[in-house]
Amino acid sequence: MLSLLVGMRILVIGGMAAGATAAQFARKTDRKAEVTIVGKEPQPIYSKCGLPYSLSGRIPTFEQLVEFDERWFEQFKIGLMLGTEATSVDPSAKTVATCDSRHGKEETLAYDSLILATGASPWMPPLEGAYAEPGVLKEGVHLIRTMGDGKRLSENAWRDARAVIIGGGLIGMEFAEALTVRGVQVTIVELLPEILLASLDEDMAMAARQIIEKTRTPVFLGHRATKITGEKRVESVIVENVGTRQTTEIPADIVVVSTGTRANTELAVNAGCVLGETGQIKVDRRCQTSVPGIFAAGDCTEYVDLITGKPVAVGMGTVATRQGRTAGINAAGGRSEMPPGVLGTRVTMAFGMHLAGVGPTEPLLRKAGIEPVIGRYAGSTLPDYIPGGRDIIVKVLAHPSDGRLVGAQIVGTGRVHQRINAFAVAILAGMTLDQFSKLETAYAPPIAPTLDAITLACDVALMKMRRR
Amino acid sequence: MLSLLVGMRILVIGGMAAGATAAQFARKTDRKAEVTIVGKEPQPIYSKCGLPYSLSGRIPTFEQLVEFDERWFEQFKIGLMLGTEATSVDPSAKTVATCDSRHGKEETLAYDSLILATGASPWMPPLEGAYAEPGVLKEGVHLIRTMGDGKRLSENAWRDARAVIIGGGLIGMEFAEALTVRGVQVTIVELLPEILLASLDEDMAMAARQIIEKTRTPVFLGHRATKITGEKRVESVIVENVGTRQTTEIPADIVVVSTGTRANTELAVNAGCVLGETGQIKVDRRCQTSVPGIFAAGDCTEYVDLITGKPVAVGMGTVATRQGRTAGINAAGGRSEMPPGVLGTRVTMAFGMHLAGVGPTEPLLRKAGIEPVIGRYAGSTLPDYIPGGRDIIVKVLAHPSDGRLVGAQIVGTGRVHQRINAFAVAILAGMTLDQFSKLETAYAPPIAPTLDAITLACDVALMKMRRR
Repeated sequence: MLSLLVGMRILVIGGMAAGATAAQFARKTDRKAEVTIVGKEPQPIYSKCGLPYSLSGRIPTFEQLVEFDERWFEQFKIGLMLGTEATSVDPSAKTVATCDSRHGKEETLAYDSLILATGASPWMPPLEGAYAEPGVLKEGVHLIRTMGDGKRLSENAWRDARAVIIGGGLIGMEFAEALTVRGVQVTIVELLPEILLASLDEDMAMAARQIIEKTRTPVFLGHRATKITGEKRVESVIVENVGTRQTTEIPADIVVVSTGTRANTELAVNAGCVLGETGQIKVDRRCQTSVPGIFAAGDCTEYVDLITGKPVAVGMGTVATRQGRTAGINAAGGRSEMPPGVLGTRVTMAFGMHLAGVGPTEPLLRKAGIEPVIGRYAGSTLPDYIPGGRDIIVKVLAHPSDGRLVGAQIVGTGRVHQRINAFAVAILAGMTLDQFSKLETAYAPPIAPTLDAITLACDVALMKMRRR
Repeated sequence: MLSLLVGMRILVIGGMAAGATAAQFARKTDRKAEVTIVGKEPQPIYSKCGLPYSLSGRIPTFEQLVEFDERWFEQFKIGLMLGTEATSVDPSAKTVATCDSRHGKEETLAYDSLILATGASPWMPPLEGAYAEPGVLKEGVHLIRTMGDGKRLSENAWRDARAVIIGGGLIGMEFAEALTVRGVQVTIVELLPEILLASLDEDMAMAARQIIEKTRTPVFLGHRATKITGEKRVESVIVENVGTRQTTEIPADIVVVSTGTRANTELAVNAGCVLGETGQIKVDRRCQTSVPGIFAAGDCTEYVDLITGKPVAVGMGTVATRQGRTAGINAAGGRSEMPPGVLGTRVTMAFGMHLAGVGPTEPLLRKAGIEPVIGRYAGSTLPDYIPGGRDIIVKVLAHPSDGRLVGAQIVGTGRVHQRINAFAVAILAGMTLDQFSKLETAYAPPIAPTLDAITLACDVALMKMRRR
């Protein structure tokens, strides 16, 4: 870059949720800084979480997912180098080497502050027949992370096609539903004994699955996908019951592999940044890596769980955006800190099933030595006497020593999502079951009952605690 | 009562939200106690807040508002003396005199603990022509508090009737909408310069009114109803502009007077209970009145505002239920405390307008010497890129000394209500703007944006605070 430097040079690698937010807040913090984004994808920031909804048609086109267009970045004087890969970092010289993937043009960019927001890539489990040749997926097999991936799946999603979704997590559910809306016949395959176990405890996940199964969507639990058959094109998926080893062949035109992601840490490793226990980049509350002048944010990083204190791999837009903001402010010389840990607030809806969670699940709490006190309450979103209520189950988890809320999960047929925010505030504030159970919740007959299921679940937990 | 006493005698005067809840929790606390409710109305507990929705037809009948029927009380061994008025208390003898309004039968009941849950009655402002004769409303004029009142209004609400609602508060709005649904042509008259000022600040109330006015419902602001014309039946309402003194005659077949309530404190005064500044019964955190052995709960009581520390007249089902629980447990020898003050969480929806508030309004804060820092954010309930979002305006009020949240209000065309609960938790927990603004809120494209308007309003307030 030959531009006349008038201020600090802030370079952001990655232009999605974390990166674009970082650039925006760096710009807000230092009006004179030279802020540049180097982004691998050809589009400026778009919502990756929105891909299932462009697939389903709820969002009419994929292009509408773009949140800020080139003009916006121009207006805010943020340089955009799209379709460009950062290939190496020299932290002593404070330079980054880049390569424009379209023209092969190489450049070296100097920085004063560097923000790594390199994200994550979808992970392909060991699965025979997934690739047609090394690096090229068999026709009909999809790993989805980018807008391009979404478009390819959309082109393949003809009415009455048969799809197998490998992986019954949040993303798997969202794509399964989107394909169903498109008229595709979907089967979900999950390796673990229950779907959604990264988001919900087994009892809550079962309740979620029971709602999904009312739509007659087949779900194979405890089945490992072992092979994708078909010469040039997918023909079927062979799945194996992990208990009995019995195999089943599921005919398929489409396979969506949704079995998690791996952080893109090559550049960070190249720069000498320390990775944490989860294999992702370690950052502090200001989003600083171990290398001075280098910050990191988003799905490539590891942060701490607020409750267990254990490292967790960041993999949520919510956290990515907040880290982006923090990294941007600090990289530009401002001061901003993340809360001491993440809450992991998570929500989705699919097949008429709504779920929400915050804080660690039961197994994660136990692993951290916390045997939670549990309250569970099955109620309705409205008073019994008014029609239109949705069934919801609220589960709260509290610390056995002092009744402090450490987690909450809600599953139902509607209106669970903003309810989880009340728990998120309570956990962040260190509120106890007793305090929360006395909360004056919003009440009006067409809106919520006098005593909401969120406080009644706390009452159940309190009773258990007193009985101990 | 000649029954053989096997335990403590707990007498509850009033069988609605506070009273019935108190009886229920007294029973839960002491399985052997003799628990009796003396209720003036002929029905066991029903939802008074539900009356507008039985009127509109959303709840098919008025009888469906009954929350627990006689059988339920029998099952829980709670005595029910309905249609019965408590006429006096002798706190030294620990007795209450009652009179059955249907047969005129008088009785004297002994108690060990007495719970006053006598509620409030609608207040009729000075208004010429409201009564046909002393104590008898002119035909077409309605004060609404009981199921009987609701039914009478329903019988009068023929299609194309013209109704004037005097009083533009929450209840006025709810009945105005219900009548509109029934095909009645409604006009709202409010004395103050804006509707809903007990619930919202003027700027937020104006936003609420603008949504209501889109339905072409006429709203007269700053107008006092001075006279109801008509010989035997209502013919019109004369209203006077409080500024210009100009009068307008509004033709009317129905008049609903909804200008607030007055607590029923006669019995408490008779028992020697101290009333507070608001003229309602003073109670402590255990719902004890100034007279030993006498508790009180609900709309007849006064409690403290959590933020200002000033006395407030309780007038919300939310608080009544929670006080009922507290009074019931303590009256039965258990121990339970209310939070140190009320939050005043309030919500409603009418004419497509949704509102929610928690904590004191701006004028009340100022009156208590708190000049709040204010953040206001107009956003959407969903990310911009997905169709279906509802416009919402979020306003937060924080303490100028430390940024502690002291109030929040939300107005919009949907999904504001559970959002207010997050603020209710934050205020109860003493959370600051800075802490709240970093909250990981629920995010998924069809559910809420990455950064929700509830946290963005805090960011706005934070910026203002830093600039001071």
